[in-house]
Amino acid sequence: MTQLGPGRPRLEPRRRQGHTPRAEILDAAAELFTTNGYGNTSTRAIAEAVGIRQASLYHHFGAKDDILDALLGETIAAAGELAGRLSGSPEPAAVRLYALARFDIEQLCAARWNIGALYFLPELRGERFAQFRARRDRLRESYETLAADAVADIGAAGVADAAAIPFRLVETVINIRSDGGAVPAGARRAITEAVLRVLGIPGELTAVEKAADVLMAGIGD
Amino acid sequence: MTQLGPGRPRLEPRRRQGHTPRAEILDAAAELFTTNGYGNTSTRAIAEAVGIRQASLYHHFGAKDDILDALLGETIAAAGELAGRLSGSPEPAAVRLYALARFDIEQLCAARWNIGALYFLPELRGERFAQFRARRDRLRESYETLAADAVADIGAAGVADAAAIPFRLVETVINIRSDGGAVPAGARRAITEAVLRVLGIPGELTAVEKAADVLMAGIGD
Repeated sequence: MTQLGPGRPRLEPRRRQGHTPRAEILDAAAELFTTNGYGNTSTRAIAEAVGIRQASLYHHFGAKDDILDALLGETIAAAGELAGRLSGSPEPAAVRLYALARFDIEQLCAARWNIGALYFLPELRGERFAQFRARRDRLRESYETLAADAVADIGAAGVADAAAIPFRLVETVINIRSDGGAVPAGARRAITEAVLRVLGIPGELTAVEKAADVLMAGIGD
Repeated sequence: MTQLGPGRPRLEPRRRQGHTPRAEILDAAAELFTTNGYGNTSTRAIAEAVGIRQASLYHHFGAKDDILDALLGETIAAAGELAGRLSGSPEPAAVRLYALARFDIEQLCAARWNIGALYFLPELRGERFAQFRARRDRLRESYETLAADAVADIGAAGVADAAAIPFRLVETVINIRSDGGAVPAGARRAITEAVLRVLGIPGELTAVEKAADVLMAGIGD
């Protein structure tokens, strides 16, 4: 494990996000992984950034990849749970897909650090992250099922070949954030609408949007 | 710089892609960066994978980040050049955008290693890569200009807010490859069509596709 060089940015011990040591460790790790790189970050540097001893960090996480796994899990937990609830809802698939995409985009953009950028680490292909990959695959499949159902609902105008695209469109906010860009409300909305438009769902989406509002209010949170 | 651990995959010295030492170095580096990680790859490991001495590698590249910069440049060079040629063409913007997106998707998918996954490295935000970022920004702007023009061409049905999405849609093939997936011809075509569909360009795209074929044949390559 490489120690951080002298050029590392100043971190702020004890001014971390979160109310528990575990949350503080995750916040510090997310900052270091996304700003200095995963391979360049040691557990010692993470402990230092939190203002605790390395031994205390190991009380919460056995190894650096356990921290990464916890962070990755956070990027899909809420969307995965929502997808599960939506799968049984009676609303049209287009409405449920819109609601899921909007929620997912909002949470990916609201996260303090752009943890989704870590999806591209080659480390994620190893056995250690098989469980995370399986969970993310389930979320991807939820998107694809909703998209396929939404396509079927509109008949001949539907674009069946595009069913894989909504999931990928949602994750473009990770790419935009990684390029240093904010994702303003207009862009978030445009991407959410694009999720339906690529499937051939035409024109004015106000009705779908309103139905998604009602659906989400009913689900509560 | 960290040396590669004992668990590294077997590489094949002297069976590299490319006919020059420089090309062989780039091929080996692309493999190591995308499979072991940039931070985990030393110039020594790259030299070893090519079957040359580290000193010989330094004859071609001054440092590891010079190799990364050259690889990144390859991901946008051809698309950037095509965008430049297309900007002066008299064809409708939708046809030029379709042609650019299709070409860019094909070359991102045809590349032996998924180098675009390296866009997400925090290292790219540093001064060292300012020139690459500027070149990629110009490509992004070419997409956005063509998209905005295509939206303007179709009047009220056009979705002006979506002009930033085509560039991001094209780069989703990097995300798909990074997840270990191939991007079959059907998926590549679906993404290319989605580029126009998100802008509100409706229905049957066969005419646009044929016009793009003619345009590309005229440009030659």
